[in-house]
This record gives sequence, structure tokens and C-alpha cells, in this order.
Amino acid sequence: MENDKPDIEILDTTLRDGAQGEGITFSLRDKLAVAETLDELGAAWIEAGNPASNPKDMEFFRLASSSLKLKNSKLCAFGSTRKKGIKTSSDIHLRALLDAGTEGIVIFGKSWDLHVKEVLKAQLQENLDMIAETVSFLKAEGRTVIYDAEHFFDGWVSNPSYALCAVKHALDAGADCIALCDTNGGTFPDVIARAVKEVINLNSGIPIGIHAHNDCGLALAVSLAAVQAGCSHVQGTLVGFGERCGNTSLAALIPSLELKLGLRCLPQGNLVRISELTRRVAEIANVILSDDMPYIGMHAFSHKAGTHTDGILKIEKSFEHINPAEVGNNRRLLMSEVGGRAAIAERVKKIEPSVHKDHPVIISLAEKLKKLEADGWAYEGADASFEILILRELGRYSPFFKIEAYRVMSEHPAAVSSHAWVKVLVGENSEVAAAEGVGPVGALDIALRRALTGFFPGLAKVRLEDYKVRVIDGKDAAAAHVRVLIESTDGQRSWNTVGVSDDIIDASRAALVDSIEYMLIRDQV
Amino acid sequence: MENDKPDIEILDTTLRDGAQGEGITFSLRDKLAVAETLDELGAAWIEAGNPASNPKDMEFFRLASSSLKLKNSKLCAFGSTRKKGIKTSSDIHLRALLDAGTEGIVIFGKSWDLHVKEVLKAQLQENLDMIAETVSFLKAEGRTVIYDAEHFFDGWVSNPSYALCAVKHALDAGADCIALCDTNGGTFPDVIARAVKEVINLNSGIPIGIHAHNDCGLALAVSLAAVQAGCSHVQGTLVGFGERCGNTSLAALIPSLELKLGLRCLPQGNLVRISELTRRVAEIANVILSDDMPYIGMHAFSHKAGTHTDGILKIEKSFEHINPAEVGNNRRLLMSEVGGRAAIAERVKKIEPSVHKDHPVIISLAEKLKKLEADGWAYEGADASFEILILRELGRYSPFFKIEAYRVMSEHPAAVSSHAWVKVLVGENSEVAAAEGVGPVGALDIALRRALTGFFPGLAKVRLEDYKVRVIDGKDAAAAHVRVLIESTDGQRSWNTVGVSDDIIDASRAALVDSIEYMLIRDQV
Repeated sequence: MENDKPDIEILDTTLRDGAQGEGITFSLRDKLAVAETLDELGAAWIEAGNPASNPKDMEFFRLASSSLKLKNSKLCAFGSTRKKGIKTSSDIHLRALLDAGTEGIVIFGKSWDLHVKEVLKAQLQENLDMIAETVSFLKAEGRTVIYDAEHFFDGWVSNPSYALCAVKHALDAGADCIALCDTNGGTFPDVIARAVKEVINLNSGIPIGIHAHNDCGLALAVSLAAVQAGCSHVQGTLVGFGERCGNTSLAALIPSLELKLGLRCLPQGNLVRISELTRRVAEIANVILSDDMPYIGMHAFSHKAGTHTDGILKIEKSFEHINPAEVGNNRRLLMSEVGGRAAIAERVKKIEPSVHKDHPVIISLAEKLKKLEADGWAYEGADASFEILILRELGRYSPFFKIEAYRVMSEHPAAVSSHAWVKVLVGENSEVAAAEGVGPVGALDIALRRALTGFFPGLAKVRLEDYKVRVIDGKDAAAAHVRVLIESTDGQRSWNTVGVSDDIIDASRAALVDSIEYMLIRDQV
Repeated sequence: MENDKPDIEILDTTLRDGAQGEGITFSLRDKLAVAETLDELGAAWIEAGNPASNPKDMEFFRLASSSLKLKNSKLCAFGSTRKKGIKTSSDIHLRALLDAGTEGIVIFGKSWDLHVKEVLKAQLQENLDMIAETVSFLKAEGRTVIYDAEHFFDGWVSNPSYALCAVKHALDAGADCIALCDTNGGTFPDVIARAVKEVINLNSGIPIGIHAHNDCGLALAVSLAAVQAGCSHVQGTLVGFGERCGNTSLAALIPSLELKLGLRCLPQGNLVRISELTRRVAEIANVILSDDMPYIGMHAFSHKAGTHTDGILKIEKSFEHINPAEVGNNRRLLMSEVGGRAAIAERVKKIEPSVHKDHPVIISLAEKLKKLEADGWAYEGADASFEILILRELGRYSPFFKIEAYRVMSEHPAAVSSHAWVKVLVGENSEVAAAEGVGPVGALDIALRRALTGFFPGLAKVRLEDYKVRVIDGKDAAAAHVRVLIESTDGQRSWNTVGVSDDIIDASRAALVDSIEYMLIRDQV
């Protein structure tokens, strides 16, 4: 259906420019998984690698043509214009691009006179010939050719007529799309907009695109300005990683284009999946998605200041620019000293719907929270500990067990650095257990669960997933407090708990006990 | 000197809006250290907290007035317009703002009719009175008043005449500066520019400012567009953290303004320190600075693709939009390690001026550093440990002592939670000592210094000043490495050391040993 065609053509280059980001390495399996995810989201094009320069990329294209079934996206291979001084037909790099067997081919060529002279070490005219001949050659082979005008904006500033002339050569040779690149990421949006308009005035009738880098933190703004100036093709990487400071983050751009400018980039209805699918790509790339990431980060709709949570509870758009559900994200009202009773009440209502923010339980909980935070406790990242605190305040909680005593020993030199011994009480019964481990906390964790598993067999499947320590000096600067945050999992769900003490072992003990108690409460329900 | 005045007035709100970022908690000592760092950089204003709503902030202002000596910056306290239905003179919140004793006071008030009606639940006229009366009241007390027009841009879109009228009330009441806030972070730069121009057309003659949030990833672009439209006051946080997706990152904005628009924001010559000082603020806040951060991130001038490193070696600006040295950052060529060696040589020259980047010591140090960094060591915040590493490589260092064995025991219940026993070797002599302490690391530290003080009496005056722990590869907590950073002091000077291990006690031991060795090296000189 024609009206299914998006307004903006998205080209995702996670597998090419993204792979040029420091610390990013994809295995062949990773590459297939990323391509499948981008197809699920519905990017028009997936730029999947440079088959001429990278054997792993060629292997990917070989595998993709046999085993990758794409519903929404088309693949393209990436490479440069023909080498200086040889014919297109005898250029092995262009041959490799054709052999990749993709519907689209992205060709980059020089637009900046400085690059032609100092880097390519070619005559200005020869570069123009290289562009025109390469595009014609690939068009004659029946491929869709996207021409990436590398360093277009730096070129346009330095020698505008040459930069435009280079683009014109690609146009006249039959390119299907021209993507203007801010390769060094140093151009401001106002300059971008003016340059884009000049290219659009060449009246080609084909889509003009934008490829931005984030060296000034302006990749999103540059892409937006280009679209507002008339571009209808946008390149970037879903998460945003790429060479140096990265590329335009498509996950942060697409919601702006769709929700605020009414320009559809993805198949109808797919925007709500963008949080989930971006997290999946980050997971595959083994990068930690920034919590601050616009639209899809964990903090994007987290409200901490009291005046903000209070406003949100009265009317959501008072402190939210969009509804988080539109991008598949969630609102979070944080429990903290700068938050207020309204946020606490909202949280308690999930357990006991009858309470309101002036209820005695809320007042006493707010008081308690203030004191605990002054001592260094922080519940923002420890929802399970906060739930236990609420249950205790509601009088609905009595602990399942008690640690009567423990001893933890670290030795050097030793075969195993740490040993722990623990004695627990469960009702009338007691149990002791010992364990060794790497580090005292690991040893204590194993010993504790060993002692309890006889009483609570469900604990066997629980393990520590993350462990964070922060030294704080709450209200009393003399005695340093240690805050431990633990993330636990039973393989299905994860939960977070906190412990604070002037002793790191004791702080860890508190977080471990909360973690186990929380699991037992959940199992009981 | 008049020509020392910057073109753009910078207000850093790390200690106020920054502290509203999820996961950000500052102790009193942290707050003082952040303020000192911002002063060193030379922000015009440091917005340091809300004394009316937060007792810890009031405590900070009390301490700051007695102990904080600022060379470049002025402090301001932050609060809201007077409460609805009471007089300014009897508003305890305004009293608290005055009691904070700062030269500047930032007052936020409502500009968006929706907020006045639905959140404040006030009449539109009453809100205007609140703004005017609050500003007049504080001006009469002789303070510099910066008026933050909260939600100005949402207000301007929804009801432009009311938004402008609210600003006009602050202007007419004598405000010294009006900062227009995109509180929800949802406004695009083109709308910002149009709205700013309307405010500037009010012809007030006072600086107009911008306060942006990053919910669309456009905080930098919004601030830039506002400056290009005539704003001369910019608010943000150095690192960029703040409520939800954060504020404008000043560390990413200031280089763009200074280097590309020629608008000075900092005292002459201070821009080169922005990388170092931003990293320090991140360290104090215990947030991990994004490697992708524009200008100052570790990857900002890292070149990975072969064509890029090749271009850089021919002519630097081929793939760099600015010279990294201008912001105190370094170029890194990921394939060749050339960039890395130059930086190391620079550091080593402080100890041994004769070395150059191709010296065998530098080559071997670069190799070693690469391996150590892969294991999680980071010398960014541990200069004393790095100096020991250099001395060892130069063959100028043999350890003063050796720990032959230690045992650390933590118990519960117990009068004192932790005990440590340690045996040291100094030359031919050995000594054992024991100590108890709060927490295993504290006990080990005391025992170690007790055993050594007989040999090195100077150690008696050394104590631990700060202790930070970070788990490095958090994904699999079982095999996580722990990085410990220790700050030590002898009362005169402070120094920082690092230790890494899979066992927190062992990592602490390494950092403690470096700390003592460094002190002994210094005493020997």
C-alpha cells in the first residue's frame, strides 16, 4: 500500500559506522541478530558493512542472503568510489560490493577540496570522475545507489562550488539518493540548514539525506535541522554509538520526528517498540545504554524533585513532554529526600490502595525516609528494600529469618581469599553453614543461602547479578558510611536492595538479607 | 579589568538541578569540593541548592560562608516565588533564601497558564503578583536576583501573551537577569529561537538566559540557538546530569561557544582545564563520564577506521573538528597507540625530562598500561599510583616494605565488627601488628600502619580521607573486578592511589600499600 510508505527513509548503520565505535565488536551471530532487530523495528535500510575491506562483513552478506528473512528492511553494502587511476570494471573493491549481493549500495566520495588534495592526493577533476564513473557503473548493474557525500559540510564551507559540483556529479550519474555527511561532527545546525537548502535547490527530485556525527553533541539537532530544511532520508545508529562521539541516535531522533513533527519513520504502530528493541541492540553490542538517554533511557521519565512529582500527579504533561507509553517507556516517581509525600503515597497505593498522602502511614514513612537518607540510605535504585520498608510500616511484615551470628575471614596468602561462617534462626530452628568465596561478600552470600536453602528451597535458584558500593558521609562527616546496592535474580525477574553501615560487610549483609526476604515475600504471595 | 568579563555568563547548577538527577547524592564535603572545582574552572555563578526545602543545603550555605574561598565564582541559592496567599515578609521560604547569605538568589516562577491553574491552583493574576512581589522583596534586600521563568517555552506556545506578561512582571520588579526555562525539555531549537527573540524585544537591557533539559537530546542545540538569538546567560551542569535526561552539559557547550562562535564563557585561558575539571566533578558525584561525551570524553578524539587514522596522520583537521589540546583532551589512534605514547611521555617528562615518546621506557609503559587498563586499572584519579608505576619502569624504585601475610576478620555480633592482623617485612626485619576497626578495610589500614610506624615514624600523621569502590564489569557479579580508589592525607597534602582485584580486601590492600609507599618516597626526596 502506497500510504504505508514512511515520510522519512531511515538508514541504520549500526553494523558499519556503529562498528567503528571504540569498544564495539560484532561477531557474525551478533550481526545477524542486530539486522533482525532493525528489521523488526522497521528501518528502511540496514547498512551492514564494508565487504571490500572486511572479510567478516563479506561473510555476513554471504550468510544473510541465504538465512536472513527480512520483512521491512533492505540491506546495503558500503564502500568507496573507485580507486584513483584505475577503471571501475577492474576495481576489486567495487567487485566485492557487487558480490555482496545487496539491493542497495552506499558509495562514499570526497566533497572537501582539502581531502581531495591532502588525503586522496588526487586532482580535483579526477575525484569528480571517480564519483560519476562509480555511480554509473553500479547503476548499470541494476542496484539502488545511495551516494554518501563525505565531509560535505566542511567542503561546502571551504569551497562551496566544488562541494556542490561533486554532489551534482553523483546526481547526474543516476544516484537514487544523496546523503550529505557531517563526517567530523563539527558543523552547527544553522549552517547545515543553509547547505541542505542549496542541495535541494539543485532540483534533483531524489531524496536528499543527512548523516551526522555527535562531536559537538549536536547530531540530533543537525538531523532535525536537515529534515526541517527538506531532507527525507536520515542515517544514524539506533543506540547512537559510532566513530568517536558516535552517530545520530535514531532511537532518540525517530520519536521527535514522529511525535512532534508528524513525520512517520517506521511502519505504522512500531514506535511503541523502540525502547525494547534499542535495549536489545545495546545488549547485543554489549554496551550499557545510558540511563539519561532521551525517550528510552531508564531516567527519561523519572521524577525526583518534590514539586515535579506533585505536578505529575495533578496533571501528567506538567512535567512530561510526551506520554512515555508512546515509546514503550515507563514513568517512575523516585523515592528520595527531594521527592515528597505524594510520590511515596503513589508507591504505597500499589500495595494498599486506600492510603492517601496525608495518611498517618505516609507521614511516618516520609519522616523515616528523611532520617534514613540522612544516614546514607537511598531507595531510588532499591525498590525491593523500599517495598519491605512499606510492608513493615503497614504492619504486614515479619522477617522470615534472623542472622544470629556470622564471621567472615579474609587471608593472604591463601588458596581461597575469603571464608564465611553464619548461623541463622528460622522460627525455633537454627542452622549453621560455611562457605569460601572470592572476596568476603561473596563468601557471606553463599554461606547465608546455604544455611537457608533447607528451609526455603526456592533460594537455590537466586544469584547475585550486580553489586555496587559507594562510600558516603551522610550527616556525620567523621564516620564514613558505606552504601551497598545489590541486584539479584531468580533467572526470571530481577530486584534491587540496599544496605548501609559504617562496615562494608555489615552493609552487604543488610542488602543480602533484604534480597532474600523480598524473594520469600514474593514466593508467599 | 572590563575586558576580562566573559561574553556569556555561565550559571552551573550541578549542586541544585544536578542533584535532582537520579542516583546523584552529594554529601556536604562533596558539595564543597564541587563548588571549589567550578570556581577553579571559572563559572560566573554556582547555584548551590534550595535552603528552604533541604536542611543539608542550608548547612552547606552556612559552611560555605565561613570556609569556602572563591576566586572566580559567586554563589546563589535557589527557591520559588512566595507561597500563595501570604505576604513575602512572612514567607519562611524566602526568609531561608535570605539566610543562606549568598550574593545571588535564583527565584523560579510560573509562566505556563496550565501550571498556574492545574498545579499551583491559583488565579492567573495572583501568580503575576507573586512574581513581582517576590522579586521586589529580594531586590530591596540588596541581592542580585536571577528570575527563572519555569516552563517558559511551553507557556509561550500555549498562551504567549501570558508567558511574556509573567516575564515582564519579573523585569519590571527589577530582576537582574531572566532565564527562560525549557523545563520539560520538549521544545525544538527553532521555537526556542523565536521565543527568545520576543523576550529580547521587550528591551529590558538586562541579560536574558537559557535553561534547557535534554529530553529530546537537544539541550545543547537549544542553548546554542538561544545564544545565537541573543541570550548571554546560560544555565546547565558541567557534566550534564540533572532531572530526568539531564541539563545542558556545560562541558560540551562551552567549547562550542568559545572555539566556534568566539564567545568567551570562562576566564581567559581556562578552557584547556575543562576536561580535567569535568572528570573531577564526575568523580565526586560518582558517575561514570560517558566515553562518547563531546569534546571531553575518552573517545572524543579516538580514531578507529583505517581511512580515518590514515587521514589524521596526513593532516589532523581531516578528521578532527578542533584540536583536542584546546580542551585539554588527547588524540588516540586506536590502531597505532601513537597518541597514547605521546600522552604518557608528557607525564613522565615531569620526573625525567630526557624521555621522548619513542624511548624504550615509554614503549614498555604504554604496553603495561594497556594490559592494566584491560584488567580494570584506571589511573585517571590515582596519580600517586601512576607515579610509582613510572618510577618502577625507570628503575628508580624499590619497595620500602612488603606485606608477608594478613588476616582480616569481621564478626557479628561483636563489640567491634572487624579485626586485622598483619605481618610486614622491612629489609631483614619483620614486625607484626593487630588492630580493630569499623569495617575490614579500616582495621587492615590501622594494623598496617601500626606495624610500619616503628620503621617510618612519619606514617603516624597519615590518615585515610576518602575511600571509593567501583565494581567494574557489573554484568556478571560473580567474576566482577573491584576497583578501590583511596585518598590519603598527612594533614598538608592529599594523594590518590588505586587497587584492583576480584577481592575487595585485596584491592584495598593494593591501594593502601601504594598510598604508604608514595608517602615514603616523598619523605625521602
